[in-house]
Amino acid sequence: MTDMNETLNQWLRDAHAMEEQAEQMLKTQASRIESYPELASRIRQHLEETRSQRERLESCIERRGASSSSMKDMAARMSAMMQGMGAMMSGDEVMKGLLTSYAFEHFEVASYRILISAAEAVGDAETARVCEAICREEEAMASWLADHIPGVTQTYLSRESADLDEAKR
Amino acid sequence: MTDMNETLNQWLRDAHAMEEQAEQMLKTQASRIESYPELASRIRQHLEETRSQRERLESCIERRGASSSSMKDMAARMSAMMQGMGAMMSGDEVMKGLLTSYAFEHFEVASYRILISAAEAVGDAETARVCEAICREEEAMASWLADHIPGVTQTYLSRESADLDEAKR
Repeated sequence: MTDMNETLNQWLRDAHAMEEQAEQMLKTQASRIESYPELASRIRQHLEETRSQRERLESCIERRGASSSSMKDMAARMSAMMQGMGAMMSGDEVMKGLLTSYAFEHFEVASYRILISAAEAVGDAETARVCEAICREEEAMASWLADHIPGVTQTYLSRESADLDEAKR
Repeated sequence: MTDMNETLNQWLRDAHAMEEQAEQMLKTQASRIESYPELASRIRQHLEETRSQRERLESCIERRGASSSSMKDMAARMSAMMQGMGAMMSGDEVMKGLLTSYAFEHFEVASYRILISAAEAVGDAETARVCEAICREEEAMASWLADHIPGVTQTYLSRESADLDEAKR
């Protein structure tokens, strides 16, 4: 018989591994984007948020007395997923990056919604509260990206048609 | 110098490959889900929509006189991404499936928003109209999944804690 509390612990570890991968992805993106300063700035801001999210998840895991032993396994699986996504980023790099980031933010949003339901099911109000706060930050990032898709697309297309190197990065 | 119209053609081919992958993913999910009939039913409905979306994209590509030669390349890259996502689906399969589907729907939403902006930039109103209609279908699917995350999570946790095999599928 699997205890609901143990399942929640496992999912919190998964989320922690997810934020570690997010940190790597955002770092790479921030270092590559050169000609879209507003996008680069929002990504750097979210990188800071992501580090704080990882720490807040660590506090939940510790407070619940859960071990972090199986984090490596999930991190490896997440890494495979991100490599797959990364394989799509060639040529029009900034566009594929935008697409991947937007999808990944929603992967995170869904993860936190699952965690909130699970935390409520076991009566862990503090974990539910932390996950709700993190979820709002992910939603804000996703929403910012959605709002900026038209502008970035138009800029990319004009630069590309003018044959400017700065289109892609 | 890269023509904006050629870029739009390439992105339409990418979207076509994306819908082919979506069809495979939805087929697999529909065949595996056994104990969540409402979810399985919505996935089957979206599978039908996805086939129609692929056909509508084909019409846009043909109307624009674009070739479909480089579809294979993108399909291979998409396939790598989906394999990465699929690698995460072990153990709590229905939960990981929900998570992946939600993220993938948003990957599609962002793709269509990019296509709409690109179609507007080159003055192709018909392609913009088709992509707007498809985008609304993807958003409806994403929104349905979001609404059902709490219910599926609660059902999964109760079945798992009662050690029922039907929890995972």
